[in-house]
Amino acid sequence: MSDLADDKTRKDLLNRLRRAEGQLRGIQRMIEEGQPCLDIASQMAAVRKALDSTYVRMTVCFMEQELSARLPANAAKGAALGEVLGDVQTLLGKIR
Amino acid sequence: MSDLADDKTRKDLLNRLRRAEGQLRGIQRMIEEGQPCLDIASQMAAVRKALDSTYVRMTVCFMEQELSARLPANAAKGAALGEVLGDVQTLLGKIR
Repeated sequence: MSDLADDKTRKDLLNRLRRAEGQLRGIQRMIEEGQPCLDIASQMAAVRKALDSTYVRMTVCFMEQELSARLPANAAKGAALGEVLGDVQTLLGKIR
Repeated sequence: MSDLADDKTRKDLLNRLRRAEGQLRGIQRMIEEGQPCLDIASQMAAVRKALDSTYVRMTVCFMEQELSARLPANAAKGAALGEVLGDVQTLLGKIR
């Protein structure tokens, strides 16, 4: 399976992961400070959600890249691929 | 909702989160190096799993702490609370 060629997407993914990393550090601080379990749980759920949407974002970008590469330019444009993939991203975001 | 009083558990949670943080940094490196999406996806799934089991661990420790505090010492011991909660942890680990 190939890598992600689009630089903008890669930057977007990196930013999301960097944010998640910061959130994880925040959770460690919360535990060290002895904050309530419920607050820690909320933050952990937030990181999980952030990772899941990063995963979906990567998958959809991969789809776009691979389909575009395989379809003739006109077909990809005519099929309004971007629109379909936007919907796919929304759908995948609901299930995970 | 109260915090986690048990120091050993807190250290365990902190270690797990620190490891997950390291995994997230590894994923960022993979993206920067242009590694295949499938490999990145596997690593992201691993972090998700690690976070989920950390969440379950925290929840079960919380249960143990709160139940022990509310039950008379004999009752908690007689009910073999630790055993039940070990099973609860296994069950929660399967569903998430």
